[in-house]
Amino acid sequence: MSEIKIGDYIIKRLVQLGTRSIQGVPGDFNMAFLDLIEDSEDVVWVGNANELNAAYSADGYSRIKGTVAALVTTFGVGELSAINGVAGAFSERVPVVHIVGVPSTSAQGAHSLLHHTLGDGRFGAFANMSKEISQASTLLQSPDGAAQEVDRVLTIAARDARPVYIALPTDLVHKKISSKGLATPLSVEVPANDEKAEKYVLNVATKHIEDAKRAVILVDACAIRHHCIQETKDLIEKSGLPVFSTPMGKTAIDEDHAQYGGIYVGSITSNEVRQIVERSDVLITVGALKSDFNTGNFTYRTPKESTVELHTDHTTIGYSHYPGIGMKGLLPKLAERLSRSREKRLKVTKQILPKFDNILPQDEGEDKETITQAYFWPRMGKFFRPKDQIIVETGTSSFGMLEAKLPRSSMFVAQILWGSIGWSVGATLGVALAAREEKLGKTCLFVGDGSLQLTAQEIGTMIRQGLKPFLFVLSNDGYEIERQIHGPERVYNNIAPWNHSLLLDLMSAPTSEDVTRVSASHKCDPKPSKKKYYAVRTKNELDQLLDDPTFNAGKEIQLIEVFMKRGDAPTALKRQAQATSCANKYE
Amino acid sequence: MSEIKIGDYIIKRLVQLGTRSIQGVPGDFNMAFLDLIEDSEDVVWVGNANELNAAYSADGYSRIKGTVAALVTTFGVGELSAINGVAGAFSERVPVVHIVGVPSTSAQGAHSLLHHTLGDGRFGAFANMSKEISQASTLLQSPDGAAQEVDRVLTIAARDARPVYIALPTDLVHKKISSKGLATPLSVEVPANDEKAEKYVLNVATKHIEDAKRAVILVDACAIRHHCIQETKDLIEKSGLPVFSTPMGKTAIDEDHAQYGGIYVGSITSNEVRQIVERSDVLITVGALKSDFNTGNFTYRTPKESTVELHTDHTTIGYSHYPGIGMKGLLPKLAERLSRSREKRLKVTKQILPKFDNILPQDEGEDKETITQAYFWPRMGKFFRPKDQIIVETGTSSFGMLEAKLPRSSMFVAQILWGSIGWSVGATLGVALAAREEKLGKTCLFVGDGSLQLTAQEIGTMIRQGLKPFLFVLSNDGYEIERQIHGPERVYNNIAPWNHSLLLDLMSAPTSEDVTRVSASHKCDPKPSKKKYYAVRTKNELDQLLDDPTFNAGKEIQLIEVFMKRGDAPTALKRQAQATSCANKYE
Repeated sequence: MSEIKIGDYIIKRLVQLGTRSIQGVPGDFNMAFLDLIEDSEDVVWVGNANELNAAYSADGYSRIKGTVAALVTTFGVGELSAINGVAGAFSERVPVVHIVGVPSTSAQGAHSLLHHTLGDGRFGAFANMSKEISQASTLLQSPDGAAQEVDRVLTIAARDARPVYIALPTDLVHKKISSKGLATPLSVEVPANDEKAEKYVLNVATKHIEDAKRAVILVDACAIRHHCIQETKDLIEKSGLPVFSTPMGKTAIDEDHAQYGGIYVGSITSNEVRQIVERSDVLITVGALKSDFNTGNFTYRTPKESTVELHTDHTTIGYSHYPGIGMKGLLPKLAERLSRSREKRLKVTKQILPKFDNILPQDEGEDKETITQAYFWPRMGKFFRPKDQIIVETGTSSFGMLEAKLPRSSMFVAQILWGSIGWSVGATLGVALAAREEKLGKTCLFVGDGSLQLTAQEIGTMIRQGLKPFLFVLSNDGYEIERQIHGPERVYNNIAPWNHSLLLDLMSAPTSEDVTRVSASHKCDPKPSKKKYYAVRTKNELDQLLDDPTFNAGKEIQLIEVFMKRGDAPTALKRQAQATSCANKYE
Repeated sequence: MSEIKIGDYIIKRLVQLGTRSIQGVPGDFNMAFLDLIEDSEDVVWVGNANELNAAYSADGYSRIKGTVAALVTTFGVGELSAINGVAGAFSERVPVVHIVGVPSTSAQGAHSLLHHTLGDGRFGAFANMSKEISQASTLLQSPDGAAQEVDRVLTIAARDARPVYIALPTDLVHKKISSKGLATPLSVEVPANDEKAEKYVLNVATKHIEDAKRAVILVDACAIRHHCIQETKDLIEKSGLPVFSTPMGKTAIDEDHAQYGGIYVGSITSNEVRQIVERSDVLITVGALKSDFNTGNFTYRTPKESTVELHTDHTTIGYSHYPGIGMKGLLPKLAERLSRSREKRLKVTKQILPKFDNILPQDEGEDKETITQAYFWPRMGKFFRPKDQIIVETGTSSFGMLEAKLPRSSMFVAQILWGSIGWSVGATLGVALAAREEKLGKTCLFVGDGSLQLTAQEIGTMIRQGLKPFLFVLSNDGYEIERQIHGPERVYNNIAPWNHSLLLDLMSAPTSEDVTRVSASHKCDPKPSKKKYYAVRTKNELDQLLDDPTFNAGKEIQLIEVFMKRGDAPTALKRQAQATSCANKYE
């Protein structure tokens, strides 16, 4: 019987699931595993600048690849630095396996006073902390059953689209186990629905929708996370119904689709879209995730009795709840049933559907030259091309980009529920790595000058890895989303001013060859990116740059500093900020 | 009866304890509290670049001020980003109060699907995580009892020298409570020892030490953390015994003290020191914290029966354990008892004490010009002046600086137990803030090019706050401590190469005035530091710079890039790395 090291077993499973890049930071308790990663021909080690960034990057990578991403850190110090990034993946339903190199089983058993411990012998404290934000955990203690444990947690990660945690002691990494299990890939499909129950639900749902005169489909996050995009598209096309998207569902359905009408976010939606969605007599939601920022602060107006909610593991129709009936199985059958009246519905859809397009504001008066928020986002919408990935920081960028119509097969990547400041910069690295592997289009980041500072060092990793994303930095003198919510003139919303023109040059090798990088370990260094900085101050400058073929070709990593007015914000953000401010009110 | 807002009550208590600077990052759930901080005349808000750095900075601030430092973050995203820094404070026994702005009590009660939540209604998850690394927590839910809860946790933080956690809901910050309690400052003294038990222990300890011919005192971390430095000094001077220090106890006793002989770290100590400590017939440890990196991987050679261990809350003599008998009360009495034979002991001490000094290596052959590790650390030892603070990153710097003799009243600041990479950069901000408040000497950071990248953005906060630390960056092409432990030619120990000459310029306002900072919120901006970069490649260049009066004056923030050879390491690190590698062995 052939044998394999436990560490290699984990790598093989990750590769089977589709992972090629592994993120993290070395530490003395994980280097035995890093040896195997570095020696593997199937995966690449991405050395991140710090662990939080690595977690954000794994999150971004997973979103594009649609599979389990891997993050490797070291016991205590490393894993806790990453934990906010993993919590974000839990919140946003992104499968990341967090593999933590931990002290040897004997050191743990002896409760030794090791570095990277709390000094009180509690070796389990960090795993306890991770449990709160993991769908499953395993603390490997012996080669016996190790393969089964690895398989168990990886299957849960993939199936539930949530992070899992593996503690890998130094003395087990190179221990041999049977490789037999690897012959059978992990089964990560969701279980089929109970046939009879599904048929019943199908009848009820079909009747509900067929009785409706103006049903509407609303696509949300979990359609993406649980891989139901094709099924949803079939439902739309076979039913002939109009479809809208929530912010977290943006680009699940191509925004140039003939039945697509734009973004619905409750009360902060444009009037046109709101009227159609809120006047519908049945609202069919696919993969709904009704968080405050995803629903205009819980302001859907559709009565409960008129909704059909299709979820990953349950269905609700009006007030009836059908546990265990998931959308993966239900969607194709419902699409089939609804196809009978497709033409009739399509006619109505075409009549009522608002036109969603990138419309630039005309004549902005005193802001004739200034790059306003109202101008910037639809202008960016015209810049993108199919298969581009558009990563937006929570705040000005995530709300602003809702107003842009994005091209087909592009991907809108945002962290609207967890909303951790600085996430987008780390995520951009992972997105860019995945895009290179999958041969996608441009990777474009939109981040404010405040958020950028939290995670800026990861741009160095992008350069080192030879990646060439477009980094749009919105320079508006601080934390604008916070100012919109509270304290527009408060000092605490200011930041240390940076000279962004130097950022790319800082994070690349000095041209003066001060450092002679002669070690053998540099033999296979990837070719670092060339780099270019642009300052853009007027609409005209922006237009010229965005139309420049060299710029569009993206042969270098490009940082575009867009100077915008402090206090200006996208309309959707202004409305959301008012609602949040009201919810947080203290006087 | 006069009333005060809960938020102001917390601020007043912090001020009473001695805190003037509060660290953190704004978020929508903490801005109500930040308003009060900004409006207070007693404290200053330090807006950090990110939360982990803020936690590190609070840690550094607390170490210098010797009191509870405050860290303010926002629910979920902010607090989890900071949690590794707080865990470090727990491990290293540094009192930090982590105040987290959380959603309103009503939103928590309704389990709303808010941004910054896990999306499953578990509002308690983050507080649960912090419990593992906090000495006490309080989740404020009502004005009733809020003052008592705040007092309770702050008292524990100060008394136990550990972090505590306060969850402060948005709707409670401005609620009024009685201010009566503030008239009585918190009692943070450790409780007195039981008189009879203490006397018994005193007799046993005195007999033990008086019977000894060659007793030795070893000062460690907890003598510093639990404010027993003066008592320890009295013990040394009244007993006439020789004193050594562990790495974590370095500078607790002035290194030019007549009875001080240097650093003891088990088997990795210099032979001279080792012989005296290990041939002692009684080893008196004060505040011992026997972690691997603090003991040369557990290689003390003193037999258990010959030790007297004085701890914060207990004492051990040989195999006898005396719980509840703490050193704060015991030390002065023991000193008094031992003073009888002071002269006799002092004579022996002077005979046997090795000379600890900064001795430069002579004639390094092919490294005549190269700045070697053997040269650098004693050379730096000659540079420092009384009251300087010397912050060292775990790794090359922390082990290297052990070899330097530091001037009296200087402070060695290191994170030897927790050892979180990047900590020193954040900590330097807090140390520099505290040093300015306390009018101390130069703030000097020693960090490698690898560690720097994890937390580099906090240098922007230093500049913004007008601080002028000396930032020594050891440029040696990657993670040298990891290379010493494992994989010297592994790619995973490489880093993205940076052009450090641009770092200070990046993190300060562009000179071109691209950003017009006209908002009223900038009215009271502190004057940012001027800045200067130096590249130092040879011994000669280093000597010249360190002797330059302008450089020494430190009127600007100065980044000194010291080019050193990859693969070179301080002797103590080489020995420790071997031991760690052996403990982590996997084949």
